[in-house]
Amino acid sequence: MYDIARSKRATKAFSFDDISMVPTRRTRGIDMVNLSWKIDAVSFDFPIVGAPMDSVMSPETVIQMGRLGGLGVLNLEGLWTRYEDPEPIFEELAAISDRYEATRLMQQVYAEPIKAELITARMQQIREAGVPVAGSLSPQNTREFANTVEKAGVDFFVIRGTTVSAEHVSEATEPLNLKEFIRKLEVPVIVGGCATYQSALHLMRAGSAGVLVGFGGGAAHTTRDVLGIEVPMASAISAVAEARRDYMDESGGRYVNLIADGSVGRSGDIAKAIACGADAVMVGSPLARAAEAPGKGWHWGSEAWHETLPRGERVHFDTVGSFEEVLVGPSHIPDGTMNLVGALRRSMASCGYTEVKEFQRIELVIR
Amino acid sequence: MYDIARSKRATKAFSFDDISMVPTRRTRGIDMVNLSWKIDAVSFDFPIVGAPMDSVMSPETVIQMGRLGGLGVLNLEGLWTRYEDPEPIFEELAAISDRYEATRLMQQVYAEPIKAELITARMQQIREAGVPVAGSLSPQNTREFANTVEKAGVDFFVIRGTTVSAEHVSEATEPLNLKEFIRKLEVPVIVGGCATYQSALHLMRAGSAGVLVGFGGGAAHTTRDVLGIEVPMASAISAVAEARRDYMDESGGRYVNLIADGSVGRSGDIAKAIACGADAVMVGSPLARAAEAPGKGWHWGSEAWHETLPRGERVHFDTVGSFEEVLVGPSHIPDGTMNLVGALRRSMASCGYTEVKEFQRIELVIR
Amino acid sequence: MYDIARSKRATKAFSFDDISMVPTRRTRGIDMVNLSWKIDAVSFDFPIVGAPMDSVMSPETVIQMGRLGGLGVLNLEGLWTRYEDPEPIFEELAAISDRYEATRLMQQVYAEPIKAELITARMQQIREAGVPVAGSLSPQNTREFANTVEKAGVDFFVIRGTTVSAEHVSEATEPLNLKEFIRKLEVPVIVGGCATYQSALHLMRAGSAGVLVGFGGGAAHTTRDVLGIEVPMASAISAVAEARRDYMDESGGRYVNLIADGSVGRSGDIAKAIACGADAVMVGSPLARAAEAPGKGWHWGSEAWHETLPRGERVHFDTVGSFEEVLVGPSHIPDGTMNLVGALRRSMASCGYTEVKEFQRIELVIR
Amino acid sequence: MYDIARSKRATKAFSFDDISMVPTRRTRGIDMVNLSWKIDAVSFDFPIVGAPMDSVMSPETVIQMGRLGGLGVLNLEGLWTRYEDPEPIFEELAAISDRYEATRLMQQVYAEPIKAELITARMQQIREAGVPVAGSLSPQNTREFANTVEKAGVDFFVIRGTTVSAEHVSEATEPLNLKEFIRKLEVPVIVGGCATYQSALHLMRAGSAGVLVGFGGGAAHTTRDVLGIEVPMASAISAVAEARRDYMDESGGRYVNLIADGSVGRSGDIAKAIACGADAVMVGSPLARAAEAPGKGWHWGSEAWHETLPRGERVHFDTVGSFEEVLVGPSHIPDGTMNLVGALRRSMASCGYTEVKEFQRIELVIR
Repeated sequence: MYDIARSKRATKAFSFDDISMVPTRRTRGIDMVNLSWKIDAVSFDFPIVGAPMDSVMSPETVIQMGRLGGLGVLNLEGLWTRYEDPEPIFEELAAISDRYEATRLMQQVYAEPIKAELITARMQQIREAGVPVAGSLSPQNTREFANTVEKAGVDFFVIRGTTVSAEHVSEATEPLNLKEFIRKLEVPVIVGGCATYQSALHLMRAGSAGVLVGFGGGAAHTTRDVLGIEVPMASAISAVAEARRDYMDESGGRYVNLIADGSVGRSGDIAKAIACGADAVMVGSPLARAAEAPGKGWHWGSEAWHETLPRGERVHFDTVGSFEEVLVGPSHIPDGTMNLVGALRRSMASCGYTEVKEFQRIELVIR
Repeated sequence: MYDIARSKRATKAFSFDDISMVPTRRTRGIDMVNLSWKIDAVSFDFPIVGAPMDSVMSPETVIQMGRLGGLGVLNLEGLWTRYEDPEPIFEELAAISDRYEATRLMQQVYAEPIKAELITARMQQIREAGVPVAGSLSPQNTREFANTVEKAGVDFFVIRGTTVSAEHVSEATEPLNLKEFIRKLEVPVIVGGCATYQSALHLMRAGSAGVLVGFGGGAAHTTRDVLGIEVPMASAISAVAEARRDYMDESGGRYVNLIADGSVGRSGDIAKAIACGADAVMVGSPLARAAEAPGKGWHWGSEAWHETLPRGERVHFDTVGSFEEVLVGPSHIPDGTMNLVGALRRSMASCGYTEVKEFQRIELVIR
Repeated sequence: MYDIARSKRATKAFSFDDISMVPTRRTRGIDMVNLSWKIDAVSFDFPIVGAPMDSVMSPETVIQMGRLGGLGVLNLEGLWTRYEDPEPIFEELAAISDRYEATRLMQQVYAEPIKAELITARMQQIREAGVPVAGSLSPQNTREFANTVEKAGVDFFVIRGTTVSAEHVSEATEPLNLKEFIRKLEVPVIVGGCATYQSALHLMRAGSAGVLVGFGGGAAHTTRDVLGIEVPMASAISAVAEARRDYMDESGGRYVNLIADGSVGRSGDIAKAIACGADAVMVGSPLARAAEAPGKGWHWGSEAWHETLPRGERVHFDTVGSFEEVLVGPSHIPDGTMNLVGALRRSMASCGYTEVKEFQRIELVIR
Repeated sequence: MYDIARSKRATKAFSFDDISMVPTRRTRGIDMVNLSWKIDAVSFDFPIVGAPMDSVMSPETVIQMGRLGGLGVLNLEGLWTRYEDPEPIFEELAAISDRYEATRLMQQVYAEPIKAELITARMQQIREAGVPVAGSLSPQNTREFANTVEKAGVDFFVIRGTTVSAEHVSEATEPLNLKEFIRKLEVPVIVGGCATYQSALHLMRAGSAGVLVGFGGGAAHTTRDVLGIEVPMASAISAVAEARRDYMDESGGRYVNLIADGSVGRSGDIAKAIACGADAVMVGSPLARAAEAPGKGWHWGSEAWHETLPRGERVHFDTVGSFEEVLVGPSHIPDGTMNLVGALRRSMASCGYTEVKEFQRIELVIR
């Protein structure tokens, strides 16, 4: 604890950039590393999740993500559920380089209403490809479209906002009672962002199968400048990991998955997120560097198109390789933007670990 | 406390950039947030005050500020009280881009004497528009023009300098006895800058209705380089908030408003200032980005034109929208420069607060 | 120890940039400074070792290093043992400025197999020049080529990888049993990188004559971004120096040399490495600035050409003078890139020290 | 104290940039501030000393400095004592912009021997102008030219090197016995740089009238990169101020003046140096911005021309005004480069101080 001045105190919080991992006295062959991740009844080959952002997750890339062994989540409030054919919109957006114009155009194209039938169609397309199906809604739209989503048949229902609490109070609209909602739903719910012990604990008590830790969209969001809100990720994940332990104890053994969501720009950050206690890591910008990324080099989150207070910025990334190369290699760029899975595997092996769960205990240093 | 070396010690102080806010486990609808602010007998819709700087506050923008629900303060030592028609001066200044030439020209145009009749005229113009009237003088000029200002009829008398103390000692000029001065005056006095517990406490004891915390003009002043003086804002506000509590106790309940003044560049800083304990926030540079700003894209404070030791720099800002858009939105730029009021509202809602006074207690982290 | 959050803690670690040396109350003439360094039976005029990186150590520069009084190490997995005449490859590489192309080309040219007869020839060439002979292999290739190297007749056998442990476990390939390997070998073994007390202690117990501290290739490697692994050098060296003391105690007096390997960019870093406890310092990038450097202005390490996960970047350095001028002066560039030996001598003299071993105890400050 | 790792510890040291001053609850009129400074029998109007660097102190500017009320020190090993007419050399140097060429040329022109008769002539020229006379030698040349200097008649004899100790040991040359030397000399001696309590205490015990704190030539020297030596100034001054107190006690009241020497780039740094405990401040780069500065926009120290290990860099500064304007104003540039004396006066007044000695006790914060 530091004194801001006299009676006002604050804790110091740490970002991924502030920390790094310290190898143990053992090393392991990369052949021995097991990256498999299981949430609810579904298993994945590696603990990397595609973030529900229009610039990276289309029905096609969700399917590709699934085929490679990971989980992709489609944003059910994005262009794919507002437009029968969003391709021209993507092209129009990609053609604009001015940041102010881009924000205005996003505000305009996202004003088009969400269509329930498109939600159904997109989910079905993914299901037919034989990969796990997951779609996300913001808390504001969950009530209206939850039925549609459930009927469409999903493996995971994701409720994702900048800050999602189990106790939202409003007079204008009847807020979502998260606990009741989750109890009624037949599918496992992943919910967040949250960033503190208390807020995560309440999301766990509401029955979530997984919680998203962080406020999402690292490179592309400006919540810090616009709202003054930020909890650096290393500390956020560590705090929520403690909530997971305490909740497991109070619930008599229910293990809630912790999915880091935000500020993951390089493969090293994925390893750090797990080192802080995450079970899996949701990535946005790393996938925006793939040739198949729908954003065509541009990356943005849902904060970017808010009608009166946009809090996200379109960011441009160079394309470094195919979707497959970005995820599972081989890499030909030595900066942590390619072969995310291979890098995690090697990071664990170099540090002497073979299991993700054990890797959460690795020693860290503050740089 | 840190050791600079052996017996010399110093406390660590924090700026807005060093801190951020941590959401609670609750969230609130933005419809539930109450931003109203009351000082003395006057109420405002939101706790944002236009800084008495020529580049942002003209009689016209003061009026606009009032109509939108805030408080604008006119600098009574600026171009509007030195020149019948200052418009050509503003144009001449805006045409110069060289920083050295600009300082010289400012030193020259501000050498023109202040005219009492123009003080009267400007105040009257604002009063006739039906909005709250506030004008500022430096401590050096307060004695000479106080009568004029009082007669002109103001709602708030602002005494503003880089560092204002309740105990100024000088042999060359008879210093202002602040306590006596305030007692005699019929209108409430807002006075500052100050930045420490002790200096604020003495300004409160002198009878001020509000104190300005900070040394003003964040982006545009260079007090730190020229004089070596600086107290980072988060710590300054927190220290003065403690003085407010103690003074309320010793005075038997008199609540002195704390107005943060300086280093507020983005909407997130406004929220942080309140989170540290401010009741309202005085803004300069955010308003310099408005199309109607008299500075025409340039921003400067009164330190900038000092005849022998200028301590402020003209700074250029891109225009982002109308005065109204900057203050109350809608925003189309996601960087904290538009919709200041909406951003504060959302920041509080996301953190789970509905009242400004409660928001002063929000948890902070050091980043 | 810092709290990352609640139960997750981390120590603060320091890099060379974080620290500096504090002179004592004495100064010494540079004539009195003794820089000689002895490891196993071989003595050197100064404790600076050329890093086994193709861009700086060729048979020719190894010989030059030896003649000037230092130790040069040839990379036995580099271009000189893959190609009879690697010169055209160096030229081809130097002609490429695009970083992506360069990585791809390196991946390609280093795919050529290592040839045992070239190992023998290169070692012989160096031996015939009458200077100490040292060659390095990675742990993966040590088993295959150790015999060849030993027969070729070397003074030091260097096993060098990013992270080398005494306990490597793998199922795919039978791992090297370091302890057994070192016991059988007739020549002294220098092994690393390592960065912690525990890992260094185990390398010492395995019988090494010297340990490499750090993960190598400061300027050129990206382990931090790709894997998230980093232990800042000042702390790494200090920790391993403690292991050296404790091992000397437990072994009844065996002194293992500590060779700092990585992040040494300027002559001041060499002094800092010793001040933290190193006996000698392995340098790469400083030598890449020499006119005779085989990399022709470019510098890279063995991480740079990994087939699926390159973790190093080619870096360009301006040539500042001859190999001799870079090492022993005279310097005509005042930035710590020339006269490395003279700078170390003067640093010690200015601080009041004449022996390297004593200089390890100099007072440091955190800047 | 921080752990670098386990048993290696280090204190944190602070630079001027790390700290700032906190105003008290009082302010003072600038008319009340007394800046006079007395060392030995000589009084000055303000505590600012011109650094003995060829780029700022010529016989002419030393005289100008004295007439304005300060103390200028001539470097007796510089171009003015090596060349009858150094003007063409200055012109030749100013015509070169390449940093490498400049170092080489400096190494060449400073190879010209120092001439005793020129020392005499320069000192006489200054004495005849009726201002205080002070010249500096490095420890290495003190023995040879001390007699010449003393006979030439100086008010202060300055011995200045990067690190000067009271106990220098060398076998090559008989070192200067500082204590004996000072006892024999008729004029007061100012000696440094030093940066720690112990080294300063020994210089005080050797009989110096003043000690130079710091390693000199902030902007222009690279001791930190080349040698790894640095003690940040705020901590260095604070530590030596403690030595001054303790020495005053042990000597029964002898007050040794502490002159900060290095890292003073802006007027705010002068105030900070005094706030840390300095009695006076030696400035280089601020004077290099004067139109009359002999360096013609370039600035360098004596480390820059070392024959085998130059440790200083020529730096270019924009000219901001006349020598007089830089020192005593008026200023027309608001960045701390003009009106150094006026800025110190105002800084003290704003903080509520009227005496330099009291200002040494002002409260500081770490930013």
